[in-house]
Amino acid sequence: MNQNTLDKIIENNSDQYIQELVRYLRQPSLSVNGDGIEKMVEIVAESLQTRGFSVEIIPTNHWPVIFAERKGRSDRSIIFYNHYDVQPGDPLNLWVSPPFEPQIRDGRLFARGAMDDKGHLICRIAAIDSLLALNDELPCTIKFLIEGEEEIGSPDLPTVVEQYKDRIHSDLCLWEFGDVDEDGYSIQYLGYRGMLNIELNIQTASSDGHSGIWGNLMPNAAWRLVWALASLKDSNEKVLVPGFYDHIIPPSESDINYLKQLPPMREKYITTAGSNTLVTGDLDNADLIIQSVMQPSCTICGLTSGYQGEGAKTIVPCNASAKVDFRLSPGQDAEDILAKVRRHLDHNGFTDISIKVLGKLSASRTPSDHPLVKLLSSSAEDVYGKPQRVLPICGGSGPAFLFDGIAETPVFTAGIGNPQSAIHSPNENIKIVDFVNGIRHTARICQLLEFFP
Amino acid sequence: MNQNTLDKIIENNSDQYIQELVRYLRQPSLSVNGDGIEKMVEIVAESLQTRGFSVEIIPTNHWPVIFAERKGRSDRSIIFYNHYDVQPGDPLNLWVSPPFEPQIRDGRLFARGAMDDKGHLICRIAAIDSLLALNDELPCTIKFLIEGEEEIGSPDLPTVVEQYKDRIHSDLCLWEFGDVDEDGYSIQYLGYRGMLNIELNIQTASSDGHSGIWGNLMPNAAWRLVWALASLKDSNEKVLVPGFYDHIIPPSESDINYLKQLPPMREKYITTAGSNTLVTGDLDNADLIIQSVMQPSCTICGLTSGYQGEGAKTIVPCNASAKVDFRLSPGQDAEDILAKVRRHLDHNGFTDISIKVLGKLSASRTPSDHPLVKLLSSSAEDVYGKPQRVLPICGGSGPAFLFDGIAETPVFTAGIGNPQSAIHSPNENIKIVDFVNGIRHTARICQLLEFFP
Repeated sequence: MNQNTLDKIIENNSDQYIQELVRYLRQPSLSVNGDGIEKMVEIVAESLQTRGFSVEIIPTNHWPVIFAERKGRSDRSIIFYNHYDVQPGDPLNLWVSPPFEPQIRDGRLFARGAMDDKGHLICRIAAIDSLLALNDELPCTIKFLIEGEEEIGSPDLPTVVEQYKDRIHSDLCLWEFGDVDEDGYSIQYLGYRGMLNIELNIQTASSDGHSGIWGNLMPNAAWRLVWALASLKDSNEKVLVPGFYDHIIPPSESDINYLKQLPPMREKYITTAGSNTLVTGDLDNADLIIQSVMQPSCTICGLTSGYQGEGAKTIVPCNASAKVDFRLSPGQDAEDILAKVRRHLDHNGFTDISIKVLGKLSASRTPSDHPLVKLLSSSAEDVYGKPQRVLPICGGSGPAFLFDGIAETPVFTAGIGNPQSAIHSPNENIKIVDFVNGIRHTARICQLLEFFP
Repeated sequence: MNQNTLDKIIENNSDQYIQELVRYLRQPSLSVNGDGIEKMVEIVAESLQTRGFSVEIIPTNHWPVIFAERKGRSDRSIIFYNHYDVQPGDPLNLWVSPPFEPQIRDGRLFARGAMDDKGHLICRIAAIDSLLALNDELPCTIKFLIEGEEEIGSPDLPTVVEQYKDRIHSDLCLWEFGDVDEDGYSIQYLGYRGMLNIELNIQTASSDGHSGIWGNLMPNAAWRLVWALASLKDSNEKVLVPGFYDHIIPPSESDINYLKQLPPMREKYITTAGSNTLVTGDLDNADLIIQSVMQPSCTICGLTSGYQGEGAKTIVPCNASAKVDFRLSPGQDAEDILAKVRRHLDHNGFTDISIKVLGKLSASRTPSDHPLVKLLSSSAEDVYGKPQRVLPICGGSGPAFLFDGIAETPVFTAGIGNPQSAIHSPNENIKIVDFVNGIRHTARICQLLEFFP
């Protein structure tokens, strides 16, 4: 399969690939306010047209989605999901070099979007360049779905995927991120937890009261909120909403096998969290990972009520609010959980607490015994000198269920991030070596897909 | 006792008393920043010297205390506790007339300090004027302790009272406030609850974590705070701290007799609170009042943790804080309660939650069968056409325990406020009729005291 030749091509052209990435990174493209979006869409569309792709620019309620396709010589197909929008650069004063003036230092390329997500997009495009340098035809059909709203929660993506599901449908989808860990292993994330993000609100009176007078009389919004929250989860981290744990699909034998190959996480977790302890208690490594990312979670993200300044203000607050984030395991359904939380609050007398839904996402998951897991892993071994480390699911959530579910396309990762990539933060960066290896890995996946039985 | 003559004097001179009050109200005296304090002290001292009082200006760490005394013809003595400082006028735009430009409208005098506390101070001074118009000698010894730090929490008052306790000691102390209710009854407050005001703080990690990754791993400061708070009081309003209710002195038979004479409070409470309901459940009127002000309370005054803006931010907060105000019944001791709360938190595993004391006050109480209660009540009947309504304790807290405890002087109220006096708020006011009645009542109390057995 000409892998040595392919590697040589990539090596010889790596400066050019980096220059192409630098060109992308110089162009701001902020979905939050539209800065540079139009120009960015032009650049991306032109990049793909130049490479023989048919390109369709799909308007949405916010920023366009770019759908592109180029047929390959085999019946196999792959789709790259990426996004051309980036987070803003602020706080600017914390950047060593400005966010939209890419700079290479110590083998890393620093810029907003270096990893999230222009680095990944150029990694895919460079892989195509290397494949086309090797052969006039692509080994498989390659498609792109590149949206411009990822950083604002992909509000239009469900509509577009629904509309384009038949054209999106492919043998696999390579997701927009992924990373190489401290030990040099490429990580394979096979799924994402679902999410139900809610705000609990209560108003108990028309205004705050004096606590000396009303402390024993007026319903206190802060107390009611505290009692309602305490009814949701106990201090052993068990969610108390009846039926909450129903329908969870437990880890498969294959999942557990992969988990057992992962390095010890406990110390790393504690160090990264900046905490002295974990709330999981003493678990073996596989169970710790299961508990952390394969089990659902219920997190208070924010609390607000009454007086929050210096010193004392002796009031009975009439308003209180909490943000609560549920991460859901495959099998759990956000709508079902929402109904159960509402029923639980009502049943415990908290009919005065309203629920506002801030966000909902379904879980998605590619079975870890899917044959393509091995294809990605063995191609990684060829590039990184070691197989991928496979996580059956990651803790986060995202729109992967649209590809997995609606477009019936299993989702995999092969990415170029690193544990210090600082996405959404000042000094976002990738390692040049990870970028080049990502190109090699992506190109190999396309090559191997041609011969996938 | 020349009461008709006294009333006539007061009637004839009421315009002059009002003008004296207006002069005081035009002079700002903000303890929070010192504005006008020096001038105010001069005015007050000069007012008392003119009336034959020996005046001592006692320096403190902040603003001076004025101690004044004039001997009377009998052995009896009364001390007026007042303060010459006021709250700031803001928000200025909500005042109909500016806070330091007194204006009379619809029988009310509007200005900052009209009730709290210059109206009360001039009410006492005008009573002295009327008594001196009647006779060259005062019927009893009259003393003033007028501080300038009431609105900033009386930080220096304990030291001054300790130092002057023998000179302060009198047959009774008339407190700085008091009011006449909707039905035209003068209210007699015989006590004040103690207070323990604390801030609970917890930090669980060096920074917030992503809830998708850390929701099941990192200790969540908001959750820990919620669980700790929920361990303090249950949703039936019962404080769960062991020993919390120990040592509470229950209402006496005399207290209960007075409580039974009070008008129904439930509807009034609900309307004033602006809430649909009370947390007390269905109690008869006396028990409702006992529950509201004679029992201790535990109030969350504020909650803060994590993300509190619009929409969602999916974090595990590393910091959380709550302000908690305990009002304490006579018999309870703030230090003892603090120790019990600490022990309770520790016992329940919340050693990671720190307690910062924001304020502590002792309870104070004049027994409702004290013979002077009847003296004040019958003098009120003469002025208002009905006896005082006696509340054995009010819900609030204050430094009355210094007079009651250290200076061994029982504390009573005979005041000029009304339910719409708006103290600490825009358009603070008193009714002119209440001001004049307050002068009559104060003068009568001094007259009757001469013959008090």
